[in-house]
Amino acid sequence: MGLTYQMKMKIPFDMADMNGHIKLPDVILLSLQVSGMQSIELGISDKDMFERYNLVWIITDYDIDVVRLPRFAEEITIETEALSYNRLFCYRRFTIYDEEGQEIIHMVATFVLMDRESRKVHPVESEIVAPYQSEFSKKLVRGPKYTDLKEAVSKDYHVRFYDLDMNGHVNNSKYLDWIFEVMGADFLMHHIPKKINLKYVKEVRPGGMINSSYNLDGLESHHQITSDGEINAQAIVKWQEMKKD
Amino acid sequence: MGLTYQMKMKIPFDMADMNGHIKLPDVILLSLQVSGMQSIELGISDKDMFERYNLVWIITDYDIDVVRLPRFAEEITIETEALSYNRLFCYRRFTIYDEEGQEIIHMVATFVLMDRESRKVHPVESEIVAPYQSEFSKKLVRGPKYTDLKEAVSKDYHVRFYDLDMNGHVNNSKYLDWIFEVMGADFLMHHIPKKINLKYVKEVRPGGMINSSYNLDGLESHHQITSDGEINAQAIVKWQEMKKD
Repeated sequence: MGLTYQMKMKIPFDMADMNGHIKLPDVILLSLQVSGMQSIELGISDKDMFERYNLVWIITDYDIDVVRLPRFAEEITIETEALSYNRLFCYRRFTIYDEEGQEIIHMVATFVLMDRESRKVHPVESEIVAPYQSEFSKKLVRGPKYTDLKEAVSKDYHVRFYDLDMNGHVNNSKYLDWIFEVMGADFLMHHIPKKINLKYVKEVRPGGMINSSYNLDGLESHHQITSDGEINAQAIVKWQEMKKD
Repeated sequence: MGLTYQMKMKIPFDMADMNGHIKLPDVILLSLQVSGMQSIELGISDKDMFERYNLVWIITDYDIDVVRLPRFAEEITIETEALSYNRLFCYRRFTIYDEEGQEIIHMVATFVLMDRESRKVHPVESEIVAPYQSEFSKKLVRGPKYTDLKEAVSKDYHVRFYDLDMNGHVNNSKYLDWIFEVMGADFLMHHIPKKINLKYVKEVRPGGMINSSYNLDGLESHHQITSDGEINAQAIVKWQEMKKD
C-alpha cells in the first residue's frame, strides 16, 4: 500500500454544469492538483523532477468509474494513492468521497516518465518512486481494446492558447472536454458517464485543429481524437441516464 | 468602507499558460469564488439570493489593472470588498497581492441584481447589501467609450456546453477567453495586459456561435464579441510587452 493524501473541498459555482454537476474535465484537473500536492509534500514536486532529473510525468490511460457526480456546493474529499509500479508504468488511484464517506468516483491513472529532451519514455527508477511507498509489481494493467471508428459523427475544434500548459502540452483534461462536447448539449443534459476508459496515444500539437468523433450504440460511445491524420486519443464511455432529483 | 474578505492560494499547474503566468480567465473565476465565499460567510450566498429573493447577481463591467501576472506555484492573496452601491449598481473591488504584500492586480467589478423570471434589472435593496457594510453613494462609475469596430480581425467560436453555468449562462470569464484567444499564440507569448476595460452588453445565447473581433493599434486593442448580429460584449485592452525573466 502506498501513502495516501487527501484534499477536502467544496465544488465552486464555476465548476458546475447546467445540471449542477461537476464538469468531468474539472475532476481530472482537481485530481492532478491533489497528486501534485502529495508530491510537493514528499519533496519530489513536478518542479523537482524537472530540475533534478529532467523528467516529466505523463498520463497514458484513465479508467474512471462514476457512481454519481458531485454537485455545486457539495463538500467532497479527493484521496490519492500511488498503488504500484513496474519498469515503465506507475499506477495511481484517485477516489472521491462524499460527505458521508461514500465513494462516488473511482479512477486509476497510468503514469509514465518522459525525458524532456528526447521526448521518450524513461524507465521508472526506484529512487524516484520510493517516497510514495508504493510497491513494485510486474503486473500490467490492461485497458480495453479500442477499435477504429467507422461512419462516426464528428466535429472540429481549434487547439487554443489557453489549452496549453507551461510545457506547451495540451492539458490532459482537454481531451475529455473534446470527447464530451461532441456529444452535444441535448445528450449531456440527460446522461452522465458511468465508466470511462481513455487512452492517450499521441500528443496533440499546439496551434492547429483536432477532430473529435464518436459512434453511439445504445448507452455506449466510442471516441477518437485525431489531428493531421493520426489518432491522438481513444475512449470508450458507458453512460447512465440521469435521475431527476 | 465595506467588510473585506481574503483567500490565500498557490497557483496550480493547470492555471498556468505557456509563459508560466496565470490565465486571465482564471483570475476572474478565482475572484468570483472569493466573493462567493464572502457571501456564504455573511449568510447571503448566491443560493440564498435565489431562494429568498429570486434574484441573481450579474456583472456588467470590469476595470482591471495588471502590474504583473502571478506565476505557477506562486502564493497569492485575493482580497475583496464591496465598495459602494447606488439604486442600481454595486461596486466591488478585488485586489491580488503577492507574498510580499505588493498589489499586483486590481479589479473593480460592477454588479447588478437581475430578476430570474423577468430577466430585468432589479433595484438594489439595502436589506440585501447591508451585511457587506458597503456605503450608499450616488456616484456612478463610468467606463470608457467603446466604439464599433471597422475592418477588424475576427474568428468564430462555438458556445460549448461546458461554457454554460448552472443557470444556463455563459460564464463571465469565457468572454475574456474569447477576447484573448483571438489575439493568437504569437502575440500572447510576448504580451500581457496592463489594463482591461470590459463591458457585458447582452448575454450570449447557449448553443450557437460567437464572433470575436479586434483592432490592434500599437499596444491598444479594441474588441467586440457578437452573435446573431448583436453586440454581446466590448473591451479595450492596453498591453505591455513581456519582460523576460
